[in-house]
Amino acid sequence: MKTITVKGKNGYKILVEKGLISKAGEHIRETTSAKKVFLISDSNVMPLYGNIVSDSLKANGFEVSAFSFEAGEKSKNLDTITQMIYAMCSSGIGRTDIVVALGGGVVGDMAGFASAIYLRGIDFIQIPTTLLSQVDSSVGGKTGCDIEYGKNLVGAFHNPRLVLIDANTLKTLSQKYMNDGLGEVIKYGAIKSSKLFKSLEECEKFEDIAEKTIIECVDIKRQVVQKDFTEKGERMLLNFGHTVAHAIEKYENFEGMAHGEAVGVGMLAITKASEKAGYTEKGSAKRIEKLLEKFSLPLTAAVSADKLTDIMLFDKKRRGSKINLVLLKKIGSSFVEPMESEKLKAFFLED
Amino acid sequence: MKTITVKGKNGYKILVEKGLISKAGEHIRETTSAKKVFLISDSNVMPLYGNIVSDSLKANGFEVSAFSFEAGEKSKNLDTITQMIYAMCSSGIGRTDIVVALGGGVVGDMAGFASAIYLRGIDFIQIPTTLLSQVDSSVGGKTGCDIEYGKNLVGAFHNPRLVLIDANTLKTLSQKYMNDGLGEVIKYGAIKSSKLFKSLEECEKFEDIAEKTIIECVDIKRQVVQKDFTEKGERMLLNFGHTVAHAIEKYENFEGMAHGEAVGVGMLAITKASEKAGYTEKGSAKRIEKLLEKFSLPLTAAVSADKLTDIMLFDKKRRGSKINLVLLKKIGSSFVEPMESEKLKAFFLED
Repeated sequence: MKTITVKGKNGYKILVEKGLISKAGEHIRETTSAKKVFLISDSNVMPLYGNIVSDSLKANGFEVSAFSFEAGEKSKNLDTITQMIYAMCSSGIGRTDIVVALGGGVVGDMAGFASAIYLRGIDFIQIPTTLLSQVDSSVGGKTGCDIEYGKNLVGAFHNPRLVLIDANTLKTLSQKYMNDGLGEVIKYGAIKSSKLFKSLEECEKFEDIAEKTIIECVDIKRQVVQKDFTEKGERMLLNFGHTVAHAIEKYENFEGMAHGEAVGVGMLAITKASEKAGYTEKGSAKRIEKLLEKFSLPLTAAVSADKLTDIMLFDKKRRGSKINLVLLKKIGSSFVEPMESEKLKAFFLED
Repeated sequence: MKTITVKGKNGYKILVEKGLISKAGEHIRETTSAKKVFLISDSNVMPLYGNIVSDSLKANGFEVSAFSFEAGEKSKNLDTITQMIYAMCSSGIGRTDIVVALGGGVVGDMAGFASAIYLRGIDFIQIPTTLLSQVDSSVGGKTGCDIEYGKNLVGAFHNPRLVLIDANTLKTLSQKYMNDGLGEVIKYGAIKSSKLFKSLEECEKFEDIAEKTIIECVDIKRQVVQKDFTEKGERMLLNFGHTVAHAIEKYENFEGMAHGEAVGVGMLAITKASEKAGYTEKGSAKRIEKLLEKFSLPLTAAVSADKLTDIMLFDKKRRGSKINLVLLKKIGSSFVEPMESEKLKAFFLED
């Protein structure tokens, strides 16, 4: 078993091992003296792994109550949070009890947010079951939900007490969910590790290097987040490809591409532009393009660059006068370039 | 002007001066580089002081949007929080903008909670306009709202960036709202300052010593909270009288006594019991009783001690196996006594 330790005031451990979820109860017992566990999952994951986790918890002396909501981004709203909290109340969950989030990013974000605000904050544990949530949302303490006005507009920073990652859960993922994670995996290589990027280029199939890759991605995110918890500097690098991706997702009303697919398109688009503008080593965009193709990720979105920059500029209004672009120096090395909003269109459109 | 500084990671200043609200904009300008202010108040306070504060903000270069909700505990729910957050979105409030909470405890708790979760946390400023919120809720970082299952079951710890206290706002308070604060003021004397308690006994009318007393109470709370931000030790002392008070309020469905009135009844009941049991210096209950009478606060509630202990024990179930009672050693000195729940009834009922 691999253990990654996230340091800091509310530090915690991330355990990575195949088959780990069937031993979840043991590891959670070592972490907390809680009597009760409130297990949160969704309609996809609860039928697959709910009983395994629940049995392991009971075998380790926990009283278990469970809450499942309909899978998907559409459930990620304040109504579901309210229902969750009502269920926590009626299950008698107290300050010293604990929430376990079993599922992908939506489950983790929502369960984390409910834990952050219930009784002004109780502990929670993440068992991420998708590639995206394993490499991305289990580190960094971001929790939250969407409201009509946009994604993740409400939330809190609330670290888990423990994260349990079992790469075997990837076997039950659909291609779309795998792609969702693969886009982010490529991102970690592009911004921070040419070695990781190369191993993705060289592997026969992703499954062969899945666990090793998850560990590397988690460790990159851990390093970045430890340096910059509240997202003022280094942490922005994690947004590589995301400014474009968010615009695509918004254009598609979050019903088109998976997030990781949009990130892939975004990384390619911005790196093509930054190569042209002389920020990035020549050939980097081509390598990203080949890797996206290898993993059957889309290269473009069905929306014009002109429209996308309009959406980016509209989003930006809420944030400040410049737009922070994350660019590659070369594969494995990245930086933040604040760009005047007037120059953004030319950056993306000029030939 | 008196300045009290709350130290710590997210420390802030509390300014106390008569007439301060008409200069709110200046002081807020010194604290933040925000462009926009989102002013939150309720239907009682907005008509009285909304324009004064808003004009002062505009005069100091802020763009001001305002949100007012129906005054009273009934508005303290997740629906109002959702409306607030929607209004913040449509006013284009960004991460570097700021919320100003103008009003009593409900306004402060709700505006603070909305600030804590909007974009995962933005800054807010408290302008408490009731005696209770001035002495109590502007220090300690507790924010939140009620849900059907009970009071303050959701919330967050989120410190304000600045607190502005203007004792002139007490002039517009009804007797009920004054009583609400006076109960808590007496509490501060009882648990921590025999000098403060004595000044309340000796003053001709409260107005004469209002500002001085507010400063003393705020400073006591500041000291207590600095020692113990998340309520594991010293901070429990602030709950003197509150275990009984919560039971009374719950019995009356939060539609009877004001909170501070219930705290008064609670302090008297528990001190009578603790005197009998030998924990507290003789004569302390009598002094509390006289002070409650002096300020026209009720001495008893229309509910039996038997019923009240039942409610206390029911509440306790969610918390742990013992019930923590705050008792006086004597006026000005207090301690926490963990009591087995089986002994609670005898403690209150035995003659």
